[in-house]
Amino acid sequence: MSMINVHEKGYVRLVDHMGSDLTVVNAARVSYSKESLELNERDVRLIKFLAQEGHTSPFRHAIAQFEVYAPLMVARQWWKYVVGSAHYEGTGDSLDAWNESSRRYITEEPAFYIPQAGEWRSKPANSKQGSGEPITWELGEKHTRELMAYVELGISKYEAALADGVCAEQARLFLPAYGLYIRWYWTASVQSVAHFLAQRLEDDAQQEIQQYAKAILELIKPIYPVSLEQLI
Amino acid sequence: MSMINVHEKGYVRLVDHMGSDLTVVNAARVSYSKESLELNERDVRLIKFLAQEGHTSPFRHAIAQFEVYAPLMVARQWWKYVVGSAHYEGTGDSLDAWNESSRRYITEEPAFYIPQAGEWRSKPANSKQGSGEPITWELGEKHTRELMAYVELGISKYEAALADGVCAEQARLFLPAYGLYIRWYWTASVQSVAHFLAQRLEDDAQQEIQQYAKAILELIKPIYPVSLEQLI
Amino acid sequence: MSMINVHEKGYVRLVDHMGSDLTVVNAARVSYSKESLELNERDVRLIKFLAQEGHTSPFRHAIAQFEVYAPLMVARQWWKYVVGSAHYEGTGDSLDAWNESSRRYITEEPAFYIPQAGEWRSKPANSKQGSGEPITWELGEKHTRELMAYVELGISKYEAALADGVCAEQARLFLPAYGLYIRWYWTASVQSVAHFLAQRLEDDAQQEIQQYAKAILELIKPIYPVSLEQLI
Amino acid sequence: MSMINVHEKGYVRLVDHMGSDLTVVNAARVSYSKESLELNERDVRLIKFLAQEGHTSPFRHAIAQFEVYAPLMVARQWWKYVVGSAHYEGTGDSLDAWNESSRRYITEEPAFYIPQAGEWRSKPANSKQGSGEPITWELGEKHTRELMAYVELGISKYEAALADGVCAEQARLFLPAYGLYIRWYWTASVQSVAHFLAQRLEDDAQQEIQQYAKAILELIKPIYPVSLEQLI
Repeated sequence: MSMINVHEKGYVRLVDHMGSDLTVVNAARVSYSKESLELNERDVRLIKFLAQEGHTSPFRHAIAQFEVYAPLMVARQWWKYVVGSAHYEGTGDSLDAWNESSRRYITEEPAFYIPQAGEWRSKPANSKQGSGEPITWELGEKHTRELMAYVELGISKYEAALADGVCAEQARLFLPAYGLYIRWYWTASVQSVAHFLAQRLEDDAQQEIQQYAKAILELIKPIYPVSLEQLI
Repeated sequence: MSMINVHEKGYVRLVDHMGSDLTVVNAARVSYSKESLELNERDVRLIKFLAQEGHTSPFRHAIAQFEVYAPLMVARQWWKYVVGSAHYEGTGDSLDAWNESSRRYITEEPAFYIPQAGEWRSKPANSKQGSGEPITWELGEKHTRELMAYVELGISKYEAALADGVCAEQARLFLPAYGLYIRWYWTASVQSVAHFLAQRLEDDAQQEIQQYAKAILELIKPIYPVSLEQLI
Repeated sequence: MSMINVHEKGYVRLVDHMGSDLTVVNAARVSYSKESLELNERDVRLIKFLAQEGHTSPFRHAIAQFEVYAPLMVARQWWKYVVGSAHYEGTGDSLDAWNESSRRYITEEPAFYIPQAGEWRSKPANSKQGSGEPITWELGEKHTRELMAYVELGISKYEAALADGVCAEQARLFLPAYGLYIRWYWTASVQSVAHFLAQRLEDDAQQEIQQYAKAILELIKPIYPVSLEQLI
Repeated sequence: MSMINVHEKGYVRLVDHMGSDLTVVNAARVSYSKESLELNERDVRLIKFLAQEGHTSPFRHAIAQFEVYAPLMVARQWWKYVVGSAHYEGTGDSLDAWNESSRRYITEEPAFYIPQAGEWRSKPANSKQGSGEPITWELGEKHTRELMAYVELGISKYEAALADGVCAEQARLFLPAYGLYIRWYWTASVQSVAHFLAQRLEDDAQQEIQQYAKAILELIKPIYPVSLEQLI
């Protein structure tokens, strides 16, 4: 399995990967010029030790590559987190590459994330951020309908502007962009992926991005089982 | 002057700065353990030499700090450029700090960028990206009115969703987010600012971000005149 | 006081700085578009909260700049730590600029760090790394003399090689380089400096670098007292 | 062939790699959601275009991993260049991982780079940096002998210090460290490797590092032929 769907239209695809738990062990042991060929008990203990002591650089030598298709609001949080982690939270793994589609010139039909009736959540009880229980099905249905109509109206105005000769980079002002799907390639080390997962799998992460994080984990857990077990 | 308005609602403010052209000279000369106290002809030639040969690390020791208020589409391009420059284009100055407001929890009234009648541009003649001449005033007036109405409708739906108890992180799906104003702090080296300006002052940059780039330049040109002259 | 001597020949000099504890507060509050002009109790609590929760990005907007003169072995650890922190330990503050002198072409007389009789330390009791109690004064005196003679011999061979026309980049093979003094400019955010200090002030850090870390702390504690109190 | 010897004792080994020229093409085309399965003429033209325009981010998704054994002076230049490129020259690819052996605690026998009689170079005619023609064989033989004796003396003093109970982190002051071999793992993107090669294959790079650069190129040219052709 190398692809997992998220919501109605989104997905995560594992494009490629390099190395295994052994890569971490061999990178850490470079000092001793011994190379393991099969993961033994001592190697597992070394990975545990590295993770516990925060010596995470050896985890940077094992790499995974994904294609992701997700709403802009998810992409923004993801990118802030991953690419800008050094900048935002001092976590600092910048071993990431990222290439995404742009609305400045793309001509692909715009697609949008629209929560279904049962997917709308209430505001959280004790926090300024995040979300709580689902709202009622009736209210959910209403807002799904409202959003659907609003998105359709936006698309028609966007297309009218293009038809009147307005440049794409301004016409997109008509799009309710937080829900707009974009697509990107993400290449990252196990250290970076684990750090992303550790935060985005948490309960207070926006639920939409939690679901992408779960898909990422499912795709790479079989490849780096010990490292991910220890890091997350 | 430490603040310049951009469009109707946006602005750039110079919050603080550190160093001068001399900082660049002294950082470059650390090898020779001589320190200049006043910029002389030889120093100016050194700055020219460093810029021409691409030895830009000494420009990383002079720092400027800005507060910016701009539409999300500008922020996204800016951030991609600056914070992610290492990732996007291998320009690699990551000497930047960035803190921005978030729509996941902020309760400030949303404000939007809406081009005025004469500010709408046509699509470019020979390119998939960018923009060309202004469209007619009549068409511009129409789209300003259309966008204004669409934004107002979005805000009212956004507020209705909040009133129905929907969490802010989902309710924002109703906002035409590309034009939504956000505010951020940006701390960057002269190397990084110059690199940003070199690209965003170009004709094929989106005009909205060009105007911010011009404001940045106006604010710091008097502080690092020789360095900016040479780097841009 | 803006300069502190370390050992016989080394030093740390505070060249410049930008901002104060208030900078951290204002960068963190950009979301709320309120700016503090004087540090009050609420601001202090905010700094505590940011440090405890690991939201360290606001500390990246306050900057300090140093000139350091230290043996190569100290420079290597420092640089590994600071510049390469993202790479080595995933701490990832890359908001640093670094310019150092190079032995590939410099003609300055080489200077060396030679521990005095009482400064030689024994190997640690229970660890492969670090050091323990001082060795006896007699043994210390012997190794000081030995090292002095060995350094002098190296310098004379280095100079003989240069005199025979050997290029500097090969002649330096004769220098006992771990003790060779180099000089560099380091510009770093308070986040980065604090992270460096947190590690290099620890007992298991090499004592030579601990002494530089203490000098750094003494120089900037008065400028960012609350932030450093909370981060270290 | 996955390993190439450099000088008498050094080597470069290709440990692993991920992707091919197609990876670059697919990462660049994510905007268009089309994926190539075989490299065709249009793909080759795309790679050329990306390299010429400086859109190098797609080259960050193809990765190579090496083990290197080289003298400290080579390691220092390499690392300054690669890991610190963002800091030193604003080239900014930080998509690198690096793990090296440390003299603070390792107990492996120290090994040294000693140029042979014909390998000593003169100082350059018109530059403060670099090297010129070989010096005479007689002079070369003399300095090889001198260096060999000096290294042996250093090792014996280093061992005497250890035997007297001095900690390894201080005893190493007796080692002529520029020639000391160290071993490291380097994981880097094609963008980063190409950038390193572009500089280190140049005539004014120190010849010792040029030879390592040639070995790196020989090992990965067959894997990313078009990309390397265009980027170097």
